[in-house]
Amino acid sequence: MSHQTAYRTHHVDEVNESLAGQKVTIAGWVDRRRDHGGVAFLDVRDASGLVQVVVYDEELARPLRSEFVVQVTGDVRLRPEGNENDHLATGKVEIVADSIEVLAKSAALPFQVSTALANETEQQLPGEETRLKYRYLDLRRPQMQANLKLRSDMARAARHALEEMDFTEVETPTFIKSTPEGARDFLVPARLVPGSWYALPQSPQLLKQLLMVSGVERYYQLARCYRDEDFRADRQPEFTQLDMEMSFVDQEDVMAMAEKVIAAIWKVAGYDVQLPIQRISWKDAMDKYGSDKPDLRFGNQLVDLTEYFKDTPFRVFQAPYVGAVVYKGAADLPRRQFDAWQEWARQRGAKGLAYVQFTADGVLKGPVAKNLSDAEREGLKEAVHAEDGDAVFFAAGAKESSQLLLGAARVEIARREGLLDPKKFAFTWVVDFPLFKPTDDPDDDDVAVGHSKWTSMHHPFTMPSKDWIDTFDQDPEHAMSDSYDIVCNGEEMGGGSVRIHRDDIQDRVLKVLGISKEEADEKFGFLLEAFKYGAPPHAGIALGWDRTVSLLAGTDTIRDVIAFPKAGGGRDPLTGAPAPISDEQRAETGVDYDPDEEDED
Amino acid sequence: MSHQTAYRTHHVDEVNESLAGQKVTIAGWVDRRRDHGGVAFLDVRDASGLVQVVVYDEELARPLRSEFVVQVTGDVRLRPEGNENDHLATGKVEIVADSIEVLAKSAALPFQVSTALANETEQQLPGEETRLKYRYLDLRRPQMQANLKLRSDMARAARHALEEMDFTEVETPTFIKSTPEGARDFLVPARLVPGSWYALPQSPQLLKQLLMVSGVERYYQLARCYRDEDFRADRQPEFTQLDMEMSFVDQEDVMAMAEKVIAAIWKVAGYDVQLPIQRISWKDAMDKYGSDKPDLRFGNQLVDLTEYFKDTPFRVFQAPYVGAVVYKGAADLPRRQFDAWQEWARQRGAKGLAYVQFTADGVLKGPVAKNLSDAEREGLKEAVHAEDGDAVFFAAGAKESSQLLLGAARVEIARREGLLDPKKFAFTWVVDFPLFKPTDDPDDDDVAVGHSKWTSMHHPFTMPSKDWIDTFDQDPEHAMSDSYDIVCNGEEMGGGSVRIHRDDIQDRVLKVLGISKEEADEKFGFLLEAFKYGAPPHAGIALGWDRTVSLLAGTDTIRDVIAFPKAGGGRDPLTGAPAPISDEQRAETGVDYDPDEEDED
Repeated sequence: MSHQTAYRTHHVDEVNESLAGQKVTIAGWVDRRRDHGGVAFLDVRDASGLVQVVVYDEELARPLRSEFVVQVTGDVRLRPEGNENDHLATGKVEIVADSIEVLAKSAALPFQVSTALANETEQQLPGEETRLKYRYLDLRRPQMQANLKLRSDMARAARHALEEMDFTEVETPTFIKSTPEGARDFLVPARLVPGSWYALPQSPQLLKQLLMVSGVERYYQLARCYRDEDFRADRQPEFTQLDMEMSFVDQEDVMAMAEKVIAAIWKVAGYDVQLPIQRISWKDAMDKYGSDKPDLRFGNQLVDLTEYFKDTPFRVFQAPYVGAVVYKGAADLPRRQFDAWQEWARQRGAKGLAYVQFTADGVLKGPVAKNLSDAEREGLKEAVHAEDGDAVFFAAGAKESSQLLLGAARVEIARREGLLDPKKFAFTWVVDFPLFKPTDDPDDDDVAVGHSKWTSMHHPFTMPSKDWIDTFDQDPEHAMSDSYDIVCNGEEMGGGSVRIHRDDIQDRVLKVLGISKEEADEKFGFLLEAFKYGAPPHAGIALGWDRTVSLLAGTDTIRDVIAFPKAGGGRDPLTGAPAPISDEQRAETGVDYDPDEEDED
Repeated sequence: MSHQTAYRTHHVDEVNESLAGQKVTIAGWVDRRRDHGGVAFLDVRDASGLVQVVVYDEELARPLRSEFVVQVTGDVRLRPEGNENDHLATGKVEIVADSIEVLAKSAALPFQVSTALANETEQQLPGEETRLKYRYLDLRRPQMQANLKLRSDMARAARHALEEMDFTEVETPTFIKSTPEGARDFLVPARLVPGSWYALPQSPQLLKQLLMVSGVERYYQLARCYRDEDFRADRQPEFTQLDMEMSFVDQEDVMAMAEKVIAAIWKVAGYDVQLPIQRISWKDAMDKYGSDKPDLRFGNQLVDLTEYFKDTPFRVFQAPYVGAVVYKGAADLPRRQFDAWQEWARQRGAKGLAYVQFTADGVLKGPVAKNLSDAEREGLKEAVHAEDGDAVFFAAGAKESSQLLLGAARVEIARREGLLDPKKFAFTWVVDFPLFKPTDDPDDDDVAVGHSKWTSMHHPFTMPSKDWIDTFDQDPEHAMSDSYDIVCNGEEMGGGSVRIHRDDIQDRVLKVLGISKEEADEKFGFLLEAFKYGAPPHAGIALGWDRTVSLLAGTDTIRDVIAFPKAGGGRDPLTGAPAPISDEQRAETGVDYDPDEEDED
């Protein structure tokens, strides 16, 4: 970094051997200070790194404390032999201070900010509430600085890739009409139209479709979106998505485009993503991995035992679906660990987690074993592809929930085996999604769009796949859609679909969802109207940007890649938002507007 | 543009002589159709341009109407000699259609979309309400497509320039705490904290200052901002600003950086901005141009006649300020035109616009003339630098309002003289602003921050200039600030300032504004608290992005460079936003939450 400004001649990372003997002025924070018999050593930190400053004048050094902002002028010199610090880019030199100006003082810190050197272990972090309250201190830590920088670099890479492909960046409004997209809208009272409200967009979905109708053939935007959801771990009320939409394309065109963007983004951190990215159908993902976002960093597929147990005497396995997942080498785990797995399963809403063990000497053990027929016991090891020394977990019952339980167990096993390497990235497309899903799924906490027994698997603007265009409304259970998710390391990075561009198809989809003509007109009549004037075929995709950044950053939580995130319940411990408003402010919003009152005047 | 997709082998701008004899498939809109005795000619339009399609098969052509979306396959051939169209990039060739698939039909259009060729005059546009209601049709017009493209290209240029200078793009939250910045906040009820509200940011001001405290030395963001203002022409409730902030810099550093960004942006349209950009002090701008955002595409400075008329017998000119502006060659204008100028002045809140005429033969005429002393009449022409044949407008009274009136007259004169060339760009910095302004200015419709007779000229976080740091609170009337506006063609493109980074100075500024410690703590205590932990000196600037784009686009209104703008009163004629919400939605927002009721449960 090389930017001379009013306060500095050099950034500290420029201070190297070539400047030895020269006078420089640097500016930054006192990262830490050590005193050695009349001589003080300061590590001074700026955005580019750290440099050591030697202060012989005790008067100069005495007032300085951690996180004071200082401007230091002095001569660069080579460090005495043996005193070099190889961990530091500037470790061969130091600055002998002539003068130090304190630009700003710091009060005693609520927690330690200095990490001195990026390769030292970071101090034990305080709790998240404290980190968020003093976010400006938390962000000074090198790891957080790196996260912010990575996020910026990733956006740059994505934009450059999209620019190369002739995409036009268009900013869509955030004061829009409430539209149904599977969650609750945040609402903004419109003072100038008392009693009326704007909705903040859950995504630019309808707006980007309108842009396609407008003849913008390739659109993108890093768009701020809003969902008023109940607290779930790692959700934010506002979030960012990289939103892309194209006209005159099919699913293949969009996927090929998105792959280029993803490859460009990962390249930022030095990774070469192998293109094309592999694909798996939604059904295969569920059958083999018990997830619609399978983690493919490791194998260990689920085994479908429904057929195997079709005549079983074991009541629990007399179920529409029986499946299993192998826990390699776990046969010898102590009983209490298997008990803990039961608790783990119960916390996920299951009754428990049936298991057997194949001991090292070939004996079949475990609670399930005694309930099986001799033949079942005999062939089980081969049927589940286990070996002596392995344990096997089972789930039986409704197919989807059983698969999801085994899928979660598969990931949890991998976690315990240390297979979830955050530096390894396994991408996959998940394709061939159903068009609809039943509304009566108790595990699904999306807000159902519409009022029938079917709601949209993605959203109501998703195109049925070509084979189903004529018949999807006669057989909603089996109808398939042209939609696709991009998954990395078991996280859904994003997804998209071919959109409906014909009002007749859109009408029929809305009918399946139980949305009346009147309701449709009221809620998104403008889109249906737009489709009457020559809407091109179009399709798109969006990447959840916070999640995508956190994946590449290797962090556990998206809060570590957001400059000022909200804590639980949407609170901001830093500013105290949200907060009560004054009576005057409330009156101005118009939320208490009463049209009848107006009439009486 | 070259992007083969499922629907096309070529964009139309690729269809040229080199493809003659080849079969191509294109996709786009029927721009227009002409029939010539059994042969139909279609202009087909896509994002890249227009191409002519020849259809010999009447069956194929008959159903096609304007704005139908079609996929055409056919052979490229050279147009017959004499039939070339030089106005069209693809004018040497045409496509002889084998097959035409209608991808989507269009109903009868509410207004004509086709402009056929970009160089033909655009049709008379319908009213803005209609344009906004059918925005997706309005945006298909080449001019609007060009505006969207320009906006995207300008953002790209700005970002690339900032990337070159090592800026980090950081997304700041839009759900924040209400902070005082001179306008009303839009507010969002927080369902999860009933009775509490988020504010939408009027700008990322406090957040970017927190980023500086966080050690992000160079930040930028194309940020969405919100101001709940009463309707003013060309204001939008949400708008975008290019927001930049730097640490360890002074005013000069920021201005030099911003000039590079501006030059990069203008380069997009082929303009070379001469750097450094000229500067004028706020006082000179008011004195010479009667504006804090002077249009320097033309000269014609105001003339201060206060001294000249210091002993005048004319009561109207016995005023704290008398000034004039020359209207070149206007002495012969008919009386009704001067009457119309009176009306023009009254609409701006003035009592009228005094004037004199120097006729071609050297006679002084006009209503003011007879009121002056002989000596005043004698020397007037020289004093105002007029010549025979000129008219001169006067304003007398309070200095600032008189100067503003003359400044507006100066621009209006230039407009009538055709001097406001939208292809010519005159940039200037306006510097040396006062720190405070009086709160009792009736012409100022900003919401005053604070409760004293002084409010901030820019905002409460602006640093006093070095000379005033110790004394600004003793003499708020004269105290100056380190702030700067960038002006182009009489429009304020943006502005910025050195910010206060020390809590002691911030405390004293707030005190001048009449903001109590308690109020300050409640409203932005988090910033004051952050300043306690080592805040670096910092400064920044923001460009009003909609205005900046409209300047370079040469459009009269920012609505022409926003994809989906709001009409007057914040209404969206396209979607119908804002709109009433259901009782259920209202209940969920929590706006009717009554804490007492809760207590009684």
